[in-house]
Amino acid sequence: MDIGGTNMRAALVDCRGTILHSAKTPTGRNEARDDILDRMVDLIDDCKVKSRTGIKAVGIGFPGPLNVREGYIYEPPNIPSLKKTPLKKILERRLNLPVFVENDANAAALAEYRFGAGKDAKSLVCLTLGTGVGGGLILDGKIWHGADDVAGEIGHMKIRRSGRLCGCGARGCLERYASATGVVLSAKTRLRKNAGSLILKLVKGDIGKVTAKIVTSAAKEGDETAIEILAETAGHLAFGVANILNVLNPRMVVICGGLARAGKFLFTPLKTEVKRLALESAFRNVRIVRGKLGDRAGLLGAAAVAFARLD
Amino acid sequence: MDIGGTNMRAALVDCRGTILHSAKTPTGRNEARDDILDRMVDLIDDCKVKSRTGIKAVGIGFPGPLNVREGYIYEPPNIPSLKKTPLKKILERRLNLPVFVENDANAAALAEYRFGAGKDAKSLVCLTLGTGVGGGLILDGKIWHGADDVAGEIGHMKIRRSGRLCGCGARGCLERYASATGVVLSAKTRLRKNAGSLILKLVKGDIGKVTAKIVTSAAKEGDETAIEILAETAGHLAFGVANILNVLNPRMVVICGGLARAGKFLFTPLKTEVKRLALESAFRNVRIVRGKLGDRAGLLGAAAVAFARLD
Repeated sequence: MDIGGTNMRAALVDCRGTILHSAKTPTGRNEARDDILDRMVDLIDDCKVKSRTGIKAVGIGFPGPLNVREGYIYEPPNIPSLKKTPLKKILERRLNLPVFVENDANAAALAEYRFGAGKDAKSLVCLTLGTGVGGGLILDGKIWHGADDVAGEIGHMKIRRSGRLCGCGARGCLERYASATGVVLSAKTRLRKNAGSLILKLVKGDIGKVTAKIVTSAAKEGDETAIEILAETAGHLAFGVANILNVLNPRMVVICGGLARAGKFLFTPLKTEVKRLALESAFRNVRIVRGKLGDRAGLLGAAAVAFARLD
Repeated sequence: MDIGGTNMRAALVDCRGTILHSAKTPTGRNEARDDILDRMVDLIDDCKVKSRTGIKAVGIGFPGPLNVREGYIYEPPNIPSLKKTPLKKILERRLNLPVFVENDANAAALAEYRFGAGKDAKSLVCLTLGTGVGGGLILDGKIWHGADDVAGEIGHMKIRRSGRLCGCGARGCLERYASATGVVLSAKTRLRKNAGSLILKLVKGDIGKVTAKIVTSAAKEGDETAIEILAETAGHLAFGVANILNVLNPRMVVICGGLARAGKFLFTPLKTEVKRLALESAFRNVRIVRGKLGDRAGLLGAAAVAFARLD
């Protein structure tokens, strides 16, 4: 299961990462806890029915802070009704199956390691560029959780001393720059000076409607302002990636999420800047690649978590 | 053995981290390779003679890039004659003992984990604040080497977008700010405006003679300028430490090296700033402490490396 603020999705996945069946339902984030849990059980039951050989275990990718071993949810910012929920315990009792809960960004990193771009890398760092920046560390083939299950918060690495204010309360966090939100913020600044940009035509002059997707479309049409916005975003991202290389020296950096669709407009300036900023010895052998799993990373990540814990 | 640019030291160490005998000799960094190797062998032979039960293995802490498994030295910036030296292979043949070579900052981290401040922390990050900033990561009780044995280069984390130029070629590296060198650079700027500082009296007006040790002495005498210089240094260090907490979520951060002697003048502003910058969940349970091993970290680290590989 992949649980998001908007939708919950469930899939029947085999050990090679093939999705045999999938279904989704709205999360109903403000509904009562029991209603949300009932819908989770229904979704899994649906997968059970579709399975010929039966289900071995349930893996869940969850957004927000949790105790991984206990499968206990603390305070999910986007699904307030699941605050302080022993999710693993409740679902194991109701489903009579082993249930494993993991942070969704960690799950996505494990999915890319097990089924995607990182199949031959024993250590990788996965960055999911969406509304925010999610991070997951795979070290020696395993998720690195840290002492309190909060490792991998690369989105909150500070890249500016006094910069854009972040939801975490600090300033200058990577995710205020190298995310879809960051692209929109940078676009707003640049569009004030570049009234001729295709971006403005695409939103019919309404700057409030600019999205990272629109900026990417404009860049692909050759719009200079859009290309500059994405290069600026890549420059910010490079600052974070270079720090990660110098500290962790991973074999691979996998960039996922909506913004990765910007392709060469993101990756070309990213690699140039990382090369300039990182130690030569840490940059020399690293591969900086786009994730291979796209929208499936969440579900395959949840499955990968279950497989890893059953191993 | 702890090999530095100036001296080589060897010690006979038991498994509890007690130094039973030690000796040192100049490295002779510009001498021929064979002469340096001969002196290494002599130092170890000296320890052999002093040992009642015999030596089990030799651990070596070495400054600079190396292949850890092979014990092969690439290009040590401070000891050019040891360039491209298969140190492990050569010494094993000459000593007829197992030899293990490790980066010295990693060895210091392992020493604090095994014998010092981090005895009960399964994950810790150790920062050695000397001329530069050395870093070592202990994850799950083991040194994290990264894919190419260059992990832990926290000194080259970028904390400023365009900042002081570093020896690595980039700008804004942590070690240009949060090291003894950084203190001297900050002091030079501040002393131009604060002619009444005790620091200037201590160097008899010669700014070129300011050292981190002198700044620390002045701070301990209550000199405001010196206290501000150390607080500024702590602020820079906090930026790096907060990023480490958000990314790795270690149980402990151990600060070693000469600059750690500044005590509360460094640690009090450091903790305040880290609290402000790091995620609350990553800061809540971390301990930020001073290393316990002082000058012995190098030798005990080398010994800890040998013990860890024999285990």
